[in-house]
Amino acid sequence: MKKYAVNFLPSGVTVAVEEGTTILKAAERAGIYLNSVCGGEGTCGKCRVKIVFGETRQPPTELLSAEELAEGVRLACRSSVHSYLTVEVPKETADLETARGQAEACRRFRDHGESDFNGVGREFDPPVTILPLSLPPPTLEDNRDDLDRLARAVRRQTGIGEITVAPTLLPRIPLILREAGWEVSAAVDRGENRGEVIALRPIKNAPPAGGVAVDIGTTTVAVHLVDLASGKTLASAATYNSQIARGEDVIKRIISSEEEGVEPLAEAVRGDINNLIIKLSREAGIAAEDILAVTAAGNSTMIALFLGITPRQIRREPYVAPLAAPPTLRAAGAGLRVNENAVLDCVPGIAGWVGGDITAGILASGLNRSGELSLLIDIGTNGEIVVGNRDWMLACSCSAGPAFEGSGITSGTRAVAGAIERFSLGDGGDPLWETIGHEPPIGICGSGLLDAVAELFRAGILGRDGRFNPDHPTNRLAFEDGRGIFTVVGAGESGNRRPIVIAQADIDNLVRAKAAIYAGVSVLLKAVDLDPGRLERVFISGGFGRYLDIERARRIGLLPAVAPEKISFIGNGSLRGAKLFLLSRQARAEAARIAGSATYLELSANHNFMEEYGRAMFLPHTDVEKFDGNSN
Amino acid sequence: MKKYAVNFLPSGVTVAVEEGTTILKAAERAGIYLNSVCGGEGTCGKCRVKIVFGETRQPPTELLSAEELAEGVRLACRSSVHSYLTVEVPKETADLETARGQAEACRRFRDHGESDFNGVGREFDPPVTILPLSLPPPTLEDNRDDLDRLARAVRRQTGIGEITVAPTLLPRIPLILREAGWEVSAAVDRGENRGEVIALRPIKNAPPAGGVAVDIGTTTVAVHLVDLASGKTLASAATYNSQIARGEDVIKRIISSEEEGVEPLAEAVRGDINNLIIKLSREAGIAAEDILAVTAAGNSTMIALFLGITPRQIRREPYVAPLAAPPTLRAAGAGLRVNENAVLDCVPGIAGWVGGDITAGILASGLNRSGELSLLIDIGTNGEIVVGNRDWMLACSCSAGPAFEGSGITSGTRAVAGAIERFSLGDGGDPLWETIGHEPPIGICGSGLLDAVAELFRAGILGRDGRFNPDHPTNRLAFEDGRGIFTVVGAGESGNRRPIVIAQADIDNLVRAKAAIYAGVSVLLKAVDLDPGRLERVFISGGFGRYLDIERARRIGLLPAVAPEKISFIGNGSLRGAKLFLLSRQARAEAARIAGSATYLELSANHNFMEEYGRAMFLPHTDVEKFDGNSN
Repeated sequence: MKKYAVNFLPSGVTVAVEEGTTILKAAERAGIYLNSVCGGEGTCGKCRVKIVFGETRQPPTELLSAEELAEGVRLACRSSVHSYLTVEVPKETADLETARGQAEACRRFRDHGESDFNGVGREFDPPVTILPLSLPPPTLEDNRDDLDRLARAVRRQTGIGEITVAPTLLPRIPLILREAGWEVSAAVDRGENRGEVIALRPIKNAPPAGGVAVDIGTTTVAVHLVDLASGKTLASAATYNSQIARGEDVIKRIISSEEEGVEPLAEAVRGDINNLIIKLSREAGIAAEDILAVTAAGNSTMIALFLGITPRQIRREPYVAPLAAPPTLRAAGAGLRVNENAVLDCVPGIAGWVGGDITAGILASGLNRSGELSLLIDIGTNGEIVVGNRDWMLACSCSAGPAFEGSGITSGTRAVAGAIERFSLGDGGDPLWETIGHEPPIGICGSGLLDAVAELFRAGILGRDGRFNPDHPTNRLAFEDGRGIFTVVGAGESGNRRPIVIAQADIDNLVRAKAAIYAGVSVLLKAVDLDPGRLERVFISGGFGRYLDIERARRIGLLPAVAPEKISFIGNGSLRGAKLFLLSRQARAEAARIAGSATYLELSANHNFMEEYGRAMFLPHTDVEKFDGNSN
Repeated sequence: MKKYAVNFLPSGVTVAVEEGTTILKAAERAGIYLNSVCGGEGTCGKCRVKIVFGETRQPPTELLSAEELAEGVRLACRSSVHSYLTVEVPKETADLETARGQAEACRRFRDHGESDFNGVGREFDPPVTILPLSLPPPTLEDNRDDLDRLARAVRRQTGIGEITVAPTLLPRIPLILREAGWEVSAAVDRGENRGEVIALRPIKNAPPAGGVAVDIGTTTVAVHLVDLASGKTLASAATYNSQIARGEDVIKRIISSEEEGVEPLAEAVRGDINNLIIKLSREAGIAAEDILAVTAAGNSTMIALFLGITPRQIRREPYVAPLAAPPTLRAAGAGLRVNENAVLDCVPGIAGWVGGDITAGILASGLNRSGELSLLIDIGTNGEIVVGNRDWMLACSCSAGPAFEGSGITSGTRAVAGAIERFSLGDGGDPLWETIGHEPPIGICGSGLLDAVAELFRAGILGRDGRFNPDHPTNRLAFEDGRGIFTVVGAGESGNRRPIVIAQADIDNLVRAKAAIYAGVSVLLKAVDLDPGRLERVFISGGFGRYLDIERARRIGLLPAVAPEKISFIGNGSLRGAKLFLLSRQARAEAARIAGSATYLELSANHNFMEEYGRAMFLPHTDVEKFDGNSN
């Protein structure tokens, strides 16, 4: 078959593909991420690219205007390669490391500014410990072998009975010990009753040892790089999970893994993590070789896919995860480009859908250490909810879809520069908005959309049923086939000459997302016969976290009726928990107890959930009383 | 550079090499073993091949006659490739799997006929245990994850607290469990307080699980394949250690590893083991994939090289081994072609030169379990000696050279078909000999040489100083430059038209070998102030073992003065011990105790050794009294 070169701009990366390959596939092979919510079905219109040179073929689509088509704009997933091509990837389609907007987007997920170790009450005591060792050189009277000499020194210093050495390190021990003059720095991974030496260096000029905590979200992947010796966070970054090209939510990802195998999904997210690690190690001046420990938190499906394990049973009754508590692995075995002996530990999950991200969130919130009756809501594409305190915990998981992360929305965009992140309606009914980076608007992101729905509802433009009100006098509202479209920004004002609108489908997506979260909370509280008013603390976790306007969230019925002063934002709880798991053995012991003792409520098999979900599909809810006035 | 194809007969293997490459190197690349004692220095004359077609270049050599040269016979190590070549490898040069002689040679090392488990008093209880498991299928009420379900079942059946799963097996668990209908056979590697599931199969039609015990000798590599479920030995084989091409003894191997790196030596012996495993797995009908455990015993240098670790410090004061007790490794990590999760355990050594082969020999002899004062002598290229009983043990190691294995000898050959293995002088002074397989004689192997020296000494053809007696009337003795040569078989009678002779240098080699062993024994006994007569048992170990004529060994001064009825042959103790290590956790615990408690006498730094060695360089010894008459 004929092959053609496809050159992607602005990165300049070229890849050769067979005639007829879609541009989306070509980009995937070139390692270029293109936004694609529908998984390549030609329905979301997110994978717009511009053909600068060459011939493509594609079926007709309503998602592109005649003007756009004339300008060479195409859907990458529906256009196939039929000549040498030069393809320009617009900012809103690409996930370019270099874009300023990316940095802004990431800020939400990476908890920047929290540089020193914050154990939330736990001591700094990383499982991978850096030990300075001074060994007695061998003599004729004491000619024990090198391995024994090293192991004894580690045993003496740690009190651990059984010390082993990473296999690939074994051949280098005789050389390192002598090169070092018997003064070495050893990195020891400490388990319960045993330890493994995973790195050994001459103590002189020993480089700093890095550790990496990863939050593998369905939509966003976030990473912290820390100094294992001090616990200081050296750098942080986030990017979008490239698996999105194979489906926006976990169910679609599972289906993709069944149809096309686990490998492409595993490779996608491993690539994302590796790219972030490369970026961070450059930023912090720590070689990838010197990163010795990685911890990861994610929901059951994300962790299974990351480890290359089929998640297929998770979506089938009785909803069994392949593994809730993965054993300690080598990070290199999971495709991560760090030290070959670096260990990889995943925060243990609870069961079924409820994965290690929620255990991590519990760690980060301190819910498991407190006597206060608390609720933890992790707002993400996959929503996770926990109620309880140090004595008991009940958890559940529900699929909210990616609307909160600005994905799957007509003019939706991730939180890049130019994304509308704040929205209100002025007294005259005109939209007032703020964009990230104060750039010309190119789309609307999750927090902007939530604001907009709350404001449109407040203004009566949206009814309680979540439908646009045709009787409202605003001239920004139009109807097509009976479905409303609200224009936020006209094509003339927009940064990409396309109007920014909120369509009925977008409202529906957001309402479904908030309804899923709210229904999860309701079912959970009912299961323990608890009125929301009795909650003493509510923790909100997720990248969305700090940017959430509580008043508006209450207005649309996302959050239950609790007094605002009881609500705390813990930011990206999954990432913070993964970092605790990296830096504190105490936190690790707590995680094991949480995973082992928390009860899990399976919503897939729960009839109350569907009932609650239906009631929460209204704004704010069928039971308006609950959301009026102050709650105690 | 120009490349030429070299075709080796009779195997027919062809390899392309650059012009100027030696035939020895070409054979190495083709995976064909050629005998080469001197390590390619052109001095041993063992690597004779015949050029059937094509052009080679070589410097003049005295090792080949004009006749041989005319017939196309060349030294493979000195002849370089300068055209397409067809090279015939004679039986005595090659180590062909197909040669009948090979099977004969191997018999000495492989302890055939010992099919059922023989624990020498220990129970059958292999560390890698095959467990049939019946798991409860998940339900909505019990939807624990697959890994947990499996681990609990293993915990229940073994009582081990911590159960992990081999990383590469993790992704397959969900599929295997369901394919098996929750009825599986698990292979669990049991450590002290934890176990690792290394293989998992549907119980229906689960293939037998194989285990392999390896003795890595300096000259010979021997392997047993056993059924892990029953302990039955299914097949056995041995071959020569291909490292011989890089030097005949451990010192030369260490030097080679320093000059050319460890890798070629590691690859050589790994290749030998793999070839044997392939052979055995075919013979026994067990797929390599189903071999789940490997144990290896060898001296410190052999184990280091096998594991790819530099042994350089072993030959330097204070004689430190890189590792005496290697941790449990993956066999695949050491280049073995077995199941990717098969574990590799090496029998722990004592210190310095005294490696796991002697620990294994102690296990096999039962010396460590007996109250009787015992001596264990492992006769090999590297000789190892132990004295003691269940309460104490003292061990040493000495380099004897490969003469006992028929290597490094003018007409020496390994114990292939046609090798003279028995020798005596008839009443008329004429040599009487027997060859292996009753084939026409092609050379003399170790046991034949020992017989010959004893007989020549008895007949007065050799003097007490180990030199040929020019006054002896035999017409078989000739002198060249004052050094005697005794003709055993004339060129006319020989199987390869070359005379079979015993030169002064061969006598010297054998005398040095026996002197080293005897001196080791003497120093060891003196160190504990023990007269040989007080020994209650003497175990003789080594491939040579059962073929040794005690009377003649006594006559030349190889063995100390002990009553013949106290002497037992344990065959290849290293291999038998490795097999115990494979099949009995009790034996493994004993090995750890032996390695940890035996005392080690370093002969490299021992002046008494050199003195004893000098005295033992006579036949039988300077102190003849010791060897006359019966001893108690």
